[in-house]
Amino acid sequence: MSEGVEWAVHCCLNLAWADAGRGVPAARLAALYQLPAAYLNKQLQALVRDGILMSTSGPRGGFRLGRRPADITLLDIVTAIEGADEAFRCTEIRRRTPWPHTQGDFRDPCLIHQAMGRADLAWRRELAAQTLAEVKATVERSAPGLPGRTREWLAATPH
Amino acid sequence: MSEGVEWAVHCCLNLAWADAGRGVPAARLAALYQLPAAYLNKQLQALVRDGILMSTSGPRGGFRLGRRPADITLLDIVTAIEGADEAFRCTEIRRRTPWPHTQGDFRDPCLIHQAMGRADLAWRRELAAQTLAEVKATVERSAPGLPGRTREWLAATPH
Repeated sequence: MSEGVEWAVHCCLNLAWADAGRGVPAARLAALYQLPAAYLNKQLQALVRDGILMSTSGPRGGFRLGRRPADITLLDIVTAIEGADEAFRCTEIRRRTPWPHTQGDFRDPCLIHQAMGRADLAWRRELAAQTLAEVKATVERSAPGLPGRTREWLAATPH
Repeated sequence: MSEGVEWAVHCCLNLAWADAGRGVPAARLAALYQLPAAYLNKQLQALVRDGILMSTSGPRGGFRLGRRPADITLLDIVTAIEGADEAFRCTEIRRRTPWPHTQGDFRDPCLIHQAMGRADLAWRRELAAQTLAEVKATVERSAPGLPGRTREWLAATPH
């Protein structure tokens, strides 16, 4: 998984704390963690494409959440950044055996692929069960000063 | 996940079908699926390091299963090939914020990392719950002729 996933989840969380009345430019989000702004902007655009963020231009423009934190799951964010492909790559090597194939050999989908797919499904299910709202609530219980400090810092520099 | 995982699971399954009395050379396993032998050999060596396979030299040498199929899980195979790292990479970017940190901010481990870790655990649990013996039994039910054809083909060329 690319480091973009870590960035994306943190950015979504920070945007959930930001002033609703204005967007936050990519450069400001990048500065918060000393990340390369252009590369972060790519990840943010991917989140916009999937409706997780929205982006507006103009003097108070920038990125905001595209929907409520309760309607954004960790799976949504991971899928926006990494795509929806399974981690396991099945290239159907089973079909390359040198003997003549009988129909029975491939009646079922590759059962190794299916077994790996069950694990992938368990992973997705767990990510889909966790919303940004829940992560936010947990972080706020753990570090009560963090949302306020983040909100102030994001708003401090005029843009 | 690298294509090596697909190769490794198929090779373990084929070795579970092979004659117990002789090893199968990497070149023979590679020829079965038209895979690059040197690269496949690397994956097989990784399986040997984790005790999933054993390798013997000599006229009847080659690779065999290192333990019973019931004692080899899909997680064992994936870990041997891909390592034990979590898919999600946490670089603790949360510590890079420009304001002075209070102790409370980092009292808990990163909660985003923990949330992603729960999904990783669900994935591992599912892989650990599936043994090579179970995959083998399912494949044998689906393609009853396959074990015999594989065994014969692996043994056919003298080595």
